[in-house]
Amino acid sequence: MIIVMQPQAGEREIEAVKERLQKEGFSVHLSQGVARTVIGAIGDKRRLPASALEAMPGVERVIPILHPYKLAGREFRPEGTVVEVRGLQVGNGQVQIAAGPCAVESRAQLLETAEAVAAAGATMLRGGAYKPRTSPYSFQGLGPEGLEFLAEAREKTGLAIVTEVMGEPEVAQVAGVADVLQVGSRNMHNFNLLRAVGKTGKPVLLKRGLSATIEEWLLAAEYILAEGNFQVILCERGIRTFENYTRNTLDLSAVPAVKGLSHLPVFVDPSHGTGKRELVAPMAKAAVAAGADGLIIEVHPCPQEALCDGPQSLTPEKFSTLVREVAELVRALGRELARTGQ
Amino acid sequence: MIIVMQPQAGEREIEAVKERLQKEGFSVHLSQGVARTVIGAIGDKRRLPASALEAMPGVERVIPILHPYKLAGREFRPEGTVVEVRGLQVGNGQVQIAAGPCAVESRAQLLETAEAVAAAGATMLRGGAYKPRTSPYSFQGLGPEGLEFLAEAREKTGLAIVTEVMGEPEVAQVAGVADVLQVGSRNMHNFNLLRAVGKTGKPVLLKRGLSATIEEWLLAAEYILAEGNFQVILCERGIRTFENYTRNTLDLSAVPAVKGLSHLPVFVDPSHGTGKRELVAPMAKAAVAAGADGLIIEVHPCPQEALCDGPQSLTPEKFSTLVREVAELVRALGRELARTGQ
Amino acid sequence: MIIVMQPQAGEREIEAVKERLQKEGFSVHLSQGVARTVIGAIGDKRRLPASALEAMPGVERVIPILHPYKLAGREFRPEGTVVEVRGLQVGNGQVQIAAGPCAVESRAQLLETAEAVAAAGATMLRGGAYKPRTSPYSFQGLGPEGLEFLAEAREKTGLAIVTEVMGEPEVAQVAGVADVLQVGSRNMHNFNLLRAVGKTGKPVLLKRGLSATIEEWLLAAEYILAEGNFQVILCERGIRTFENYTRNTLDLSAVPAVKGLSHLPVFVDPSHGTGKRELVAPMAKAAVAAGADGLIIEVHPCPQEALCDGPQSLTPEKFSTLVREVAELVRALGRELARTGQ
Amino acid sequence: MIIVMQPQAGEREIEAVKERLQKEGFSVHLSQGVARTVIGAIGDKRRLPASALEAMPGVERVIPILHPYKLAGREFRPEGTVVEVRGLQVGNGQVQIAAGPCAVESRAQLLETAEAVAAAGATMLRGGAYKPRTSPYSFQGLGPEGLEFLAEAREKTGLAIVTEVMGEPEVAQVAGVADVLQVGSRNMHNFNLLRAVGKTGKPVLLKRGLSATIEEWLLAAEYILAEGNFQVILCERGIRTFENYTRNTLDLSAVPAVKGLSHLPVFVDPSHGTGKRELVAPMAKAAVAAGADGLIIEVHPCPQEALCDGPQSLTPEKFSTLVREVAELVRALGRELARTGQ
Repeated sequence: MIIVMQPQAGEREIEAVKERLQKEGFSVHLSQGVARTVIGAIGDKRRLPASALEAMPGVERVIPILHPYKLAGREFRPEGTVVEVRGLQVGNGQVQIAAGPCAVESRAQLLETAEAVAAAGATMLRGGAYKPRTSPYSFQGLGPEGLEFLAEAREKTGLAIVTEVMGEPEVAQVAGVADVLQVGSRNMHNFNLLRAVGKTGKPVLLKRGLSATIEEWLLAAEYILAEGNFQVILCERGIRTFENYTRNTLDLSAVPAVKGLSHLPVFVDPSHGTGKRELVAPMAKAAVAAGADGLIIEVHPCPQEALCDGPQSLTPEKFSTLVREVAELVRALGRELARTGQ
Repeated sequence: MIIVMQPQAGEREIEAVKERLQKEGFSVHLSQGVARTVIGAIGDKRRLPASALEAMPGVERVIPILHPYKLAGREFRPEGTVVEVRGLQVGNGQVQIAAGPCAVESRAQLLETAEAVAAAGATMLRGGAYKPRTSPYSFQGLGPEGLEFLAEAREKTGLAIVTEVMGEPEVAQVAGVADVLQVGSRNMHNFNLLRAVGKTGKPVLLKRGLSATIEEWLLAAEYILAEGNFQVILCERGIRTFENYTRNTLDLSAVPAVKGLSHLPVFVDPSHGTGKRELVAPMAKAAVAAGADGLIIEVHPCPQEALCDGPQSLTPEKFSTLVREVAELVRALGRELARTGQ
Repeated sequence: MIIVMQPQAGEREIEAVKERLQKEGFSVHLSQGVARTVIGAIGDKRRLPASALEAMPGVERVIPILHPYKLAGREFRPEGTVVEVRGLQVGNGQVQIAAGPCAVESRAQLLETAEAVAAAGATMLRGGAYKPRTSPYSFQGLGPEGLEFLAEAREKTGLAIVTEVMGEPEVAQVAGVADVLQVGSRNMHNFNLLRAVGKTGKPVLLKRGLSATIEEWLLAAEYILAEGNFQVILCERGIRTFENYTRNTLDLSAVPAVKGLSHLPVFVDPSHGTGKRELVAPMAKAAVAAGADGLIIEVHPCPQEALCDGPQSLTPEKFSTLVREVAELVRALGRELARTGQ
Repeated sequence: MIIVMQPQAGEREIEAVKERLQKEGFSVHLSQGVARTVIGAIGDKRRLPASALEAMPGVERVIPILHPYKLAGREFRPEGTVVEVRGLQVGNGQVQIAAGPCAVESRAQLLETAEAVAAAGATMLRGGAYKPRTSPYSFQGLGPEGLEFLAEAREKTGLAIVTEVMGEPEVAQVAGVADVLQVGSRNMHNFNLLRAVGKTGKPVLLKRGLSATIEEWLLAAEYILAEGNFQVILCERGIRTFENYTRNTLDLSAVPAVKGLSHLPVFVDPSHGTGKRELVAPMAKAAVAAGADGLIIEVHPCPQEALCDGPQSLTPEKFSTLVREVAELVRALGRELARTGQ
C-alpha cells in the first residue's frame, strides 16, 4: 500500500509510520517529493489495517494497491466459474432466463405463470415466498406455503427454483426447496445471512445492494466464497441515483466490469432495474448485448391484480415475445439460449 | 390517491379504473383536463395497492396523497416521544451524548474509554461487540465477551449502553445487556430484525440506511412501532452520494425534516457521517444547531491502534474539548446537556 | 395540477387557494379526504407557477400533472423527428456512428483518425476544437485552427462534423464549420448557449448533464426547440452516481425512456459513459440493443499520446472490430447501419 | 504520482512506462510486490497527463498524490483569504448575511425587501436580474432594468449587491453594478464564464455545482484565481442526491472540509440547499456552527406572490427572527455578525 504523508509531517512522524510498518513485517520505501513524502509498503495487509495507519499523526491518506477481495477476483480463477443448477450450466456462455412473479400469491397464480414461462423458454422460475417490503402494511409473502407451491411448480415444469431467503433462521427451510437461494438487494450487507447461505453449499443469487459499489458487491460475494461455497451468481438490479423516472438506474456497465474483475457469472434484472414494464424488453436485450449470463424477469398472469410490482411485470404474452427477440440477439452474438433438460 | 390516465386512454380504460376503485369502497371523482383525465379516489389504500392500479391499462401513474407511515408520523403524537433510557429522557429537549469506540476490542480499552467519556460528560457508552464489516477479513467483533465488558463498563460508570445487534438470533442475547439496541445502517432494511427488536420492547437506535430516503427510514421505524414498541430513536449517519472526500454525506437537513414529519427523537453520528476526525467537532456542533436530540461519537484511547474506524475516532482529550464547545452552543440555543443520574 | 393541503389547514386557507386559482382562470374541484383536503385545478399553468401556490399558507405540496415540456414531448410529434445531417437521416431507424478523438490535437492526428473511422464505417467525425476541462492546467483545445482541420477532414472523407461549442461568443464561428453543434454535458444548463444554438437552425447534439434528470434534459432541449430549431439529437453520456469504478454510470434505460417521452433521436456515448476502453464495445452494443439511434465513440491513433481521455479511447483497429460487431447486432434487430453518401 | 501495473504486465510494458516518465524528467522508483508492480514518479505532472499514462499497455491505474489545484489550496495561503466587499471583510471571522429575493421582480418588491433585510441586520443584498431557469416558460428575470433597481437599493440601504451573471457577454454589464458577481450552480463548469469573471478583478461568489465534488469546485475556483483574481467566495448550496424530500442535500461537511483544503471563505445557502422555508432557519444555524463565513438567504415580502422560489423564501419577519437567533449562536461560538459600515 501507499502512505501519503501530510505536507507538514515531520521526520518524527515519517519515522513512526516506517517503524510501525517494519514491525509488522512490511518492506518499506520512502519517496521524498517536493510537496509530500510518500511511503510504499509491501507486506501482508491483514496484519495492519489501512485505517490504523491513516489514524497516525502526519498521515494524509493510505492508498491500497490490491483489490480487497481474493476469492472473488478474476485472478483467482481466470477461466471463470460455472455454477451448476439442476443440470443447467450457469456461466458457460449460454444465456439463462429466470422468470416468474414477484411474489408467490397463490397456487393457481404460480402454476399458471410457471407453465407459461417454461413454454416461452425460461429455464428457471423466480418467485418470492418471503418478501422484503418497505412498508409493514404491504403483503409480506405466503411463507412456507409459498415454498410448497414452488416445489410443485418445479415438478410440473422442470424449471429450477430461484427464491429469496430473508434471514438466517429461514435458511435451512428455504434451502430445502430452492435450487438457487436469492439474497436480495436490501440484504447484500447482511453479513450473517451471507455466511449462512455460504454454509449451505447451494447456489446463491447475490443481488447488488441499492447503493453498493462493485467492490462492496464482490466483497459480499467473498463472504459466501470464504465459506467454501463458490456457487455464486451475481445479479445487477439497478442502483439508487438521483434519477427517479425509473425505479432504479440499471447499471449495465457493471456487467462487463464484473466479468473483468471476477470469475463469477452475472445476471441482470431489468424488471427491478427499471420498474416500468415498457422498459423491460429493451433493457433485457441490452443486458445480453453487454454480456450478461442470464436475465431474471418478472412475469404475472394479470399484472393489475399483482400484490406487488405489477407495473414492472410482463404478461406471459409479452414475455414470450421478449424471449424470441432475445434469442435472435443471442444468436447474432454467437451465443445461445440455455434450455431446460440440456 | 390520484390516478393520472395516459393521454391516449379511452373511455373503457377510465371506466375500468373507476369501477375497480368503487368495488374496493373508494369514492371517486373524475376530472377531465385538456390533455389528461385525472381520477381522485378517497378510501382505504390498504385494500388496493397503488402498484396494482398503476399496472392497469391506460394508467400513467398513481400519486399517493398521504404518507405511507402512520404510527411514526408526527400527526400520531403531536407532542413528541420521549424515550426513557436508564433514567435519561431522550427527546425531552436536552442533548444526549453517546460516545465510545467503534468496536469493543478489549476490557482495558473499553473501560478506559468509558471512564474518559463519562468524565467528559457523555451519558451513554457506544461500542460494538458484533461488527458488520464490508470485508470478511476485517475484525468482526468480540461477540458475547464484548457484551460482558460493556456491562462491566456500565456498572463502573453508570453510562447507558448502546450496542449493535446484527441478526435476529442474537437479539435476545444483546437485549440482555444493552440499554439501547442499535440497528445499523446496513440493516435498516432487514425487516425481520426490525420486527425482532420491536418485540423486545427495548429502546432502539435506528440508523438511517446508506441510501434510504427519509420516508423509507420512517417506514423502517414503523416496523418497530407496529410491534408496539415506541421506544425508537432515529440516527442520521450520512448517506451515500457522489462525493467521496467524506466517507458519507451527513444529511443534517434530515434532522429538522424528521422532527417535522415524525414524533421520534433524532440523533446524529458525525463520526460515520464524515469519516474524518477533523470534521467531527464542527459537524457535531452543526447537528445540535440543527436541532438534534443527541450525538453519537467515536472515541478511542489510541485511534492509531483501533481495529476499525481509527481515522474518524477522537482521542479522549479531543472529545472532552468537543463536549465543552457543544455545551456552550447548547446553552445559546436555550437547551442543556443531559447528565447521567438526572 | 393537484394541490394537497396540510392536515391542519383551515377553511380560510383552503378558500384562499381556491379563490386564487379561480382568479387565474382555473376550474377547481375540492376533495375532502379524512386526513387531507385535495384541490384539483385545470387551467393554464403558465399563469400561476406551482411554487407560488406552494408558498401559500396551509399548502403541503403541489403536484403537476402534465410534463413541463411541450415541444419536446412525444405527443407533439408522435411520428418522431428525423434530423438531417449532410444527407444522413438521423432518427430514421438506421444506426449512426460518430467517432473521432476527444480533442483535435494536430492536423495529422485528426486526418489519420478521420480516414480510419470513415474506412471502418463511421458516418460522422467527432473531435473538440474547444475543450471544457476540469482543470485550468489541462489542454484546452486548438480553437479556430482545430475547426479548420475538421473542415479539411470532412472534405477528405465526407464525414459529417460533430464538434462542441462552449460559449455563446463562439457559436457563429463553430456553426460556420460544424454539421452538428455539440452542447456538452457541463453546458446542458447553460441556457444562454441553448438559445444561441437554437437560433442557428443547425443540428444540435445535446448531451445530458452529469446530474440532469430526464425531465431536465428534455427541458433543455425545449429551450432549443422554442427557438424554432427542431434539429436536436439527444445524447446519453453517463450520469454521476456513487459508483466510481466507472467514470460515470451510463444510464441506458434513458434510451427507451426518452424514445417514449420524446420524438427526438437519441445517441449514446459509451466512451465518456464508462471511461474505460474495455467497457466501450460491450456498452456500445448494449446501447444499440436498447434502441439508440446512434453511437459516439472516442478513437485515437495512439491513445497513450492523447492529450485527453486516452484511457477511454479505442485504437482504429479496435474501433473497426466494434463496428463489425455492432453491424451484426443491428441486423439481428432488424435495423441497419447508416452509411455516408446514402 | 503512483502508477499501478496490471498483474499480467510484463517487463517490456513496465520498461516502457519507466522510459516515458524519465523522458519527461520524472525520477522513478520501481516497487515489485507479490501481485503488482508499482512505479512511483516524482516530477512535473503538467508535462505528462495521468490519462496518457493510464492509456499505456499494462497500466492498471494512475494515482495522483497532489491536489490538482495550486492557487486555491490552503498551502498556498495558510493564513486565509479575506475578500473585501464595499468595506466588508469577508473571511475575517465575522459572519456575513446576504439576503433578498430569488429574482428582482419590480422596483417596489426589491426596495421593500432591501430595507427590511438591512434593518434586520443583513450586510448584502442578493437578487437575480438574470435568472437561469430549468424551463423556458418560467420567468427569466428583468435583465438590465433589474440591475438598475439593485443599484438604487444599494444607494438607499448601503447593502453590498450580490447578483448572478449567466454568460460572458453580460459580464461587463453586471460587473458595472454588482459588488459581488455570482456564478450559479449550473454555471460552475462554464469555464469561459469563470475566466471572464476572473478578468474583472471583482469579488466572485462561486456556487458549488449540483454534482460537483469538492475537488472540482476548487478547480473551478482555480480558473478564476489563475486570472489573478483572488477575490473568490465559495458557496455551498446543496448537492443532488437520491433524497428528494429536500430540493437538494445541503452538504455542510463541505464547510469545514473546504476551510481545511483551501484559504477561500465559504458561504452557505440554506434556501436552495433545502427548498423548504421551515428548514432554512435550522440549517442556517447549523451552517454557522459548522464554521461558515456567511449565509445567503432568500427573503420575499410576499412569498406566495414570488415569481420563483416562493416555498423556500422567508418573510421579512421570519428573516428578522433568524438573524437574532444566528446572532446568539455566533456569540456562543466566540464570533460576531458583520455590520454594514464597519
